[in-house]
Amino acid sequence: MKRFVCLLLLFSLCVSAQDDTQTNDNPDAKMLRSIYDLSLTEGQCYENLNDLCCNIGGRLSGSKEAEMAVEWAKKKLEGFADTVFLQPVMVPHWVRGEAEEAEILFSDGSVVETHICALGFSIATPAEGLTAEVVEVFSLEEVAQLKPEEVEGKIVLFNRPMDPKHIDTFHAYSGCVDQRSSGASEAAPHGAAAVLVRSMNLRQDDLPHTGVQRYKDGVKKIPSAAISTNGASFLSEALKIDPKLKVRIKMNCQNFPDVLSYNVIADIKGSKYPDELLMVSGHLDSWDTGEGAHDDGAGTVHAMEVLRMMKVMKYEPEHTIRCVLYMNEENGPNGAIEYAKVTKELGWNHRMALESDRGGFSPRGFTFDGMDDVPDKMLATVSQWKGLFEPFHIHIFDKGFGGVDIGLMRDQGVPLIGFLPDPQRYFDYHHAPNDNMDAVNERELELGAAAIMSLVYLLDQHLEEEGR
Amino acid sequence: MKRFVCLLLLFSLCVSAQDDTQTNDNPDAKMLRSIYDLSLTEGQCYENLNDLCCNIGGRLSGSKEAEMAVEWAKKKLEGFADTVFLQPVMVPHWVRGEAEEAEILFSDGSVVETHICALGFSIATPAEGLTAEVVEVFSLEEVAQLKPEEVEGKIVLFNRPMDPKHIDTFHAYSGCVDQRSSGASEAAPHGAAAVLVRSMNLRQDDLPHTGVQRYKDGVKKIPSAAISTNGASFLSEALKIDPKLKVRIKMNCQNFPDVLSYNVIADIKGSKYPDELLMVSGHLDSWDTGEGAHDDGAGTVHAMEVLRMMKVMKYEPEHTIRCVLYMNEENGPNGAIEYAKVTKELGWNHRMALESDRGGFSPRGFTFDGMDDVPDKMLATVSQWKGLFEPFHIHIFDKGFGGVDIGLMRDQGVPLIGFLPDPQRYFDYHHAPNDNMDAVNERELELGAAAIMSLVYLLDQHLEEEGR
Repeated sequence: MKRFVCLLLLFSLCVSAQDDTQTNDNPDAKMLRSIYDLSLTEGQCYENLNDLCCNIGGRLSGSKEAEMAVEWAKKKLEGFADTVFLQPVMVPHWVRGEAEEAEILFSDGSVVETHICALGFSIATPAEGLTAEVVEVFSLEEVAQLKPEEVEGKIVLFNRPMDPKHIDTFHAYSGCVDQRSSGASEAAPHGAAAVLVRSMNLRQDDLPHTGVQRYKDGVKKIPSAAISTNGASFLSEALKIDPKLKVRIKMNCQNFPDVLSYNVIADIKGSKYPDELLMVSGHLDSWDTGEGAHDDGAGTVHAMEVLRMMKVMKYEPEHTIRCVLYMNEENGPNGAIEYAKVTKELGWNHRMALESDRGGFSPRGFTFDGMDDVPDKMLATVSQWKGLFEPFHIHIFDKGFGGVDIGLMRDQGVPLIGFLPDPQRYFDYHHAPNDNMDAVNERELELGAAAIMSLVYLLDQHLEEEGR
Repeated sequence: MKRFVCLLLLFSLCVSAQDDTQTNDNPDAKMLRSIYDLSLTEGQCYENLNDLCCNIGGRLSGSKEAEMAVEWAKKKLEGFADTVFLQPVMVPHWVRGEAEEAEILFSDGSVVETHICALGFSIATPAEGLTAEVVEVFSLEEVAQLKPEEVEGKIVLFNRPMDPKHIDTFHAYSGCVDQRSSGASEAAPHGAAAVLVRSMNLRQDDLPHTGVQRYKDGVKKIPSAAISTNGASFLSEALKIDPKLKVRIKMNCQNFPDVLSYNVIADIKGSKYPDELLMVSGHLDSWDTGEGAHDDGAGTVHAMEVLRMMKVMKYEPEHTIRCVLYMNEENGPNGAIEYAKVTKELGWNHRMALESDRGGFSPRGFTFDGMDDVPDKMLATVSQWKGLFEPFHIHIFDKGFGGVDIGLMRDQGVPLIGFLPDPQRYFDYHHAPNDNMDAVNERELELGAAAIMSLVYLLDQHLEEEGR
């Protein structure tokens, strides 16, 4: 009986909790509630992402899959946008190839396989592979400080890990990614034969994380690959015991001439300010080793969903709402360069450009970026609406990075907004073979679309009150 | 060249972002930063959870695994607490058994298997199984409104889904769980042969989610099982086409006499107020179909980690810091009843009791609970520290549920605090076979331990300033 009373007590506690699906009579609060209700009950972003990931998959610029994704997005957007058009852009065409192998060859003859993948734009190794001793460093600067005999003919292992102390994991990424983007070009002038770069991953696992690297003009091109965090840690330990060990790597990636591709652009025309754009965006291309679910399938379907929800809700925006799905963010950003160029030429007036490119995780807020005092002004406007976002667990409104693609419009004075989901898990999947549909939670993705749509709605309704 | 300039620009943007591992000179801000640094670099909660989940596994009250967990926790806590003791408590001993089967038998002779699992305390079906027609309802009330011939001898399917519109998924759970806890006892008086309850899961999948159900005194006991969300939806559709279909279920669960078990209690003695307790807790028992990773392995290792980090940091608390690992939350809560009873008898003075029992996800905040104006007072105190938590992305400080176990001390006027991680994914795993170690992200778990430790530290330092 005592047990039964306790149980009743516990249930009454649960039931007495406020019903968080209710709202007050403020018209904006009601509209946000309607947006969230729609997204959580009849949202299509998860279904769309599943379609993109499972029926097309990874879609690196220049690939057949990237072209399929362009057609797919155009067709989907035609279902609910007023106008859809393709913006031509030339994009690189780099192909990973089949063979990606690496072995650690110990002095005693024993051999341990390890997991690598070529970095974007890397050249191939010789067909039989490349075998060399390894020198471990933790920064670009350290390579320059090595004696010639310490680096000549060797594979340089860049092994500086991401710093787990950052709460915002993107800061940890920024603190390491120079090794990946510039490692080969910094090591080559010192005679390195190739580079291995510790994957940009906060976890210890066996997945190599690819990403772009660039050869500097005039510097010898050497093969450049990512090694998994487990592989990098193992190799580091192995070198302490057996400094003369060798590593054999084999990759047959190829660079081809640039090919024609497209940004996909869709508008819902504004009733009052048709020439003024509120823009939502993501990038349609992805790396090729996974399905590009979080990077940036999530941003792609977020941006599409904003337009779709407007149509479903019969919401007639005052400003033109534009969805841009950029091509070639990953090893470009040629799509973004082209879009910014055309924007300038045609005088497209962006009152705001938002990008979703931090994954499909539970939304936390938005970061505001741009030239001079542009982000401060936008932040001041948006901060008035903090209270409207609180019931939806959206709390972060700060200055910060907007997005790689929209960043190209910074010098045109466009207010840039980055959508900020919870950043803890992003680098578990970023550019890795596990960035797949099964890593995406439907509710988290839908809440993201609702958060973005809510902000676009508030800007559409109230931006003009702030003065033109 | 254009491309290279862009790249430089993008990197400078990333790098210019503020270093979020730095802090100001405020001693509390510095301490919180130290706590987070420790947890994110040398935390042991993830390793401990891995040990508990993978070497012991699911640990339902009365099981061998539950007893192993008691020994495991005691031994671990002895490594860093001043005193550790076991508090005896009698707990139920219900065993699921081996056979859990269900088939949908269509009128045309075709058969479809579906996924069920027995609910806690359920009786078995006859050894050969139980076969009956099915009537679908969406609430307890609806059963009472059925005509006798509509329910007599049938299996009642309680099929009200969780409402996805709730941002806090626990509200969606509260709105449905009466079907699971009371379905059998509501249906039995109307002649039902058994009940199937739609799993408390916001996803559509094939996993049945178990949980406790209670037989009311004097009411006939009938078998009671959870059916997966996919199974429930399929069965519902099937009934529209073939209302005379039957379902066969087979379960051989058994209720045994209560057995002796223990709450595990560990203290670090306060230097200034040794008789005043700041308590952190989780529950050590779990359901048996998974490893109990999020529910409540996470809370268990959170609470343990607070004491461990204090020792590592050589922090000498002013109040006694107590870790309570409750036994038998899931089908009890006998451990909580016993702890509250002894608290009253011995006059243990809890200045605060905190429970972590909402999983190991990215922390969002804390909810404050208790008798009369107790939560308001505690909330007012803690709200002063909101700014200290902001760098760690902790924003929610609201009145709300504290926890099932600590809730038993409500009538003694204890301020109750519930740790609140992001709630979106919790019910994907809750009481299900996938509540396993691989569903836990190390950083998310560690951030939770740091958030809880930070709040305990601030209370320890400043509670007395608020007046005694």
